[in-house]
Amino acid sequence: MKIKAIHELSVPLEGALSNSVVSFAGHDVSLVAVVTDVVKNGKPLVGYGFNSIGRFAQGGILRERVLPRILSSDPDALRGDEGFDCEAVYRIAVRNEKPGGHGDRASAVGAVELAFWDLNAKLADEPAYATIARHFGREPTRRIPVYAAGGYYYAQDGLERLQGELRAYVDSGFDAFKIKIGGASLDDDRKRIDAAIAICGGGSRLAVDANGRFDFDTALTYAKAIEPLGLRWYEEIGDPLDFALNKRMTDVYSGAIATGENLFSSQDVMNLLNFGGMRPGRDIFQMDAGLCYGLTEFGRIIDMMEKAGFDRGFAYPHGGHLINLHIVSGMNLGGCEAYPSVFQPFGGYSPECRVRDGFIVPPDLPGFGLEAKPELKPFLDQISG
Amino acid sequence: MKIKAIHELSVPLEGALSNSVVSFAGHDVSLVAVVTDVVKNGKPLVGYGFNSIGRFAQGGILRERVLPRILSSDPDALRGDEGFDCEAVYRIAVRNEKPGGHGDRASAVGAVELAFWDLNAKLADEPAYATIARHFGREPTRRIPVYAAGGYYYAQDGLERLQGELRAYVDSGFDAFKIKIGGASLDDDRKRIDAAIAICGGGSRLAVDANGRFDFDTALTYAKAIEPLGLRWYEEIGDPLDFALNKRMTDVYSGAIATGENLFSSQDVMNLLNFGGMRPGRDIFQMDAGLCYGLTEFGRIIDMMEKAGFDRGFAYPHGGHLINLHIVSGMNLGGCEAYPSVFQPFGGYSPECRVRDGFIVPPDLPGFGLEAKPELKPFLDQISG
Repeated sequence: MKIKAIHELSVPLEGALSNSVVSFAGHDVSLVAVVTDVVKNGKPLVGYGFNSIGRFAQGGILRERVLPRILSSDPDALRGDEGFDCEAVYRIAVRNEKPGGHGDRASAVGAVELAFWDLNAKLADEPAYATIARHFGREPTRRIPVYAAGGYYYAQDGLERLQGELRAYVDSGFDAFKIKIGGASLDDDRKRIDAAIAICGGGSRLAVDANGRFDFDTALTYAKAIEPLGLRWYEEIGDPLDFALNKRMTDVYSGAIATGENLFSSQDVMNLLNFGGMRPGRDIFQMDAGLCYGLTEFGRIIDMMEKAGFDRGFAYPHGGHLINLHIVSGMNLGGCEAYPSVFQPFGGYSPECRVRDGFIVPPDLPGFGLEAKPELKPFLDQISG
Repeated sequence: MKIKAIHELSVPLEGALSNSVVSFAGHDVSLVAVVTDVVKNGKPLVGYGFNSIGRFAQGGILRERVLPRILSSDPDALRGDEGFDCEAVYRIAVRNEKPGGHGDRASAVGAVELAFWDLNAKLADEPAYATIARHFGREPTRRIPVYAAGGYYYAQDGLERLQGELRAYVDSGFDAFKIKIGGASLDDDRKRIDAAIAICGGGSRLAVDANGRFDFDTALTYAKAIEPLGLRWYEEIGDPLDFALNKRMTDVYSGAIATGENLFSSQDVMNLLNFGGMRPGRDIFQMDAGLCYGLTEFGRIIDMMEKAGFDRGFAYPHGGHLINLHIVSGMNLGGCEAYPSVFQPFGGYSPECRVRDGFIVPPDLPGFGLEAKPELKPFLDQISG
């Protein structure tokens, strides 16, 4: 069992939406195909992975550093009890990388490492959640709580547009929601929040996301304004690495605080646990395997959270897509984000994944089942040669 | 005054040496040339910059994200009182980048932003240290303390090789030195340290560098072994982001501790200041502008250090090369690293920069004076078209 080739492609994200900090108009994602010499159903077995949304494709780092290391490694070093040894893939992918500086390279490695999980699941002819659950010694979660993450800022925007968007989510079966804040004045954001709550059916069903924009004073002003609403959570309040600010907010805001999607290594998460004031049983962790070197490092992160006294049910990974749906199932995490109508071709799930009463059942196709997502299929075909 | 083109080239580092964590055999650095429509001495004015050593070239991020943003920006937005507005260059270079994740992209931006400082100095017909000093409202330091950073691990190694290397540094005018530790057993490292001290003329002239390798127990064992030697400093003891470990070490080790070369943003440095236990008047900061988005962000970092009660004389940037020599002079930092015989074509200084009694005087050529470094000149010519 050998790797014949690894292909990568930078795939642009569709749409021209913004949060309070960035526009996604020029964003892209790295799609990776690991082609093996194994033949299944008359075709070479191919594993697919991608990094997650929001931190750009990583073609340069993949081509120049990560893929040459994997392709030049001893094939035996990559083999393991489960097919491929994903921890070895991680180790080889970061060889000769200095410690610290967990940014773009964490995405590059994540895209490749996840493709090997897809391969292992396909070798075992099972959905990836089953492979992941077995690897981590768990029983997969069958029904995954999902929430609709939307409410971005658009060039043509308004409360009616926002309410229409949320109403569509309600109609398609969601019962939990998230919208962006911080891209307008507090007054205007407060109107957005009120308009959203009117559709969502209560503050406890609505989370708000500042995307790391606020300084402490702004964060506090917003906190005081929203605290009476009993929101689901208050997300990425300040700079994601400003653990002191996070701690101060946990001291003064009684509702749940969510963060972690822009922490890309176990060491960064350890700092959040050590210094960020996160409160067990209340606050939410949102680290995303595709952005933090893949599932090997992500497994270490969840382990670290638990050792620090946090329940894995409070982990809601950033990134609403099929790969994270399998990870949430296989690792029994709290739930999954969904981008029902944005960030194509990666965002959202395959057509058979219907939301019912706020839950989705992951597909039973082999691997992550990316092939069953029509928006993604043409790109998979393009890089499978 | 407009930018006509920006070229970038990944230049391999010469040599096959290792520290305790990585081999530099496959390492490279991004060299950048910003070509303007200004004609000086009959030739188009070109600014050169590079990121620093150790974190790889960033051709992908430069070509795909950073350079298109700068090249598509309004030329007026890049102009400033000093020629080009380097802060605007930084701001445009990171547009639509999410917060956090300060890794590879910080190097990509650093290489470009520094090239604009080279341009500004050449526009003013002065060495870069003069431009930098004026920008930050300071008087440049004329004689820069430098230390010889060597003592790497080689495939063919031994105490005699190490002593020969250090003796050559002494003979060429150095009076302060650094060697690697952590790549051998404590016993063997202790022999290396003793052998080095015998040449250096005392422990206070010798620093040791673990390159982030140690866990707390190992770090403590080494600390106890070296504490009586009164070494110059004990560098990058544990993971560069493990602020809790750094704090514990500052609690138990009485000598100076040095760290920061693998922190690439003001927010990461703020965490070191908040949580790392660094002791004013004793411990050493080693952040490197080329790895942390360039001199705009580096200026913020030095400012932040001072506000936290640390003297800028305790900043010794990582990266022994001409760009950092000018930065240390223009910002009155403590001193500069030198790699007298390694990391060509970037390491070390130009031939007229002679070490005398442990000091170097930066060259008075316009800009960083990279053109006067013979090892680098062919690469500059290659990308100036």
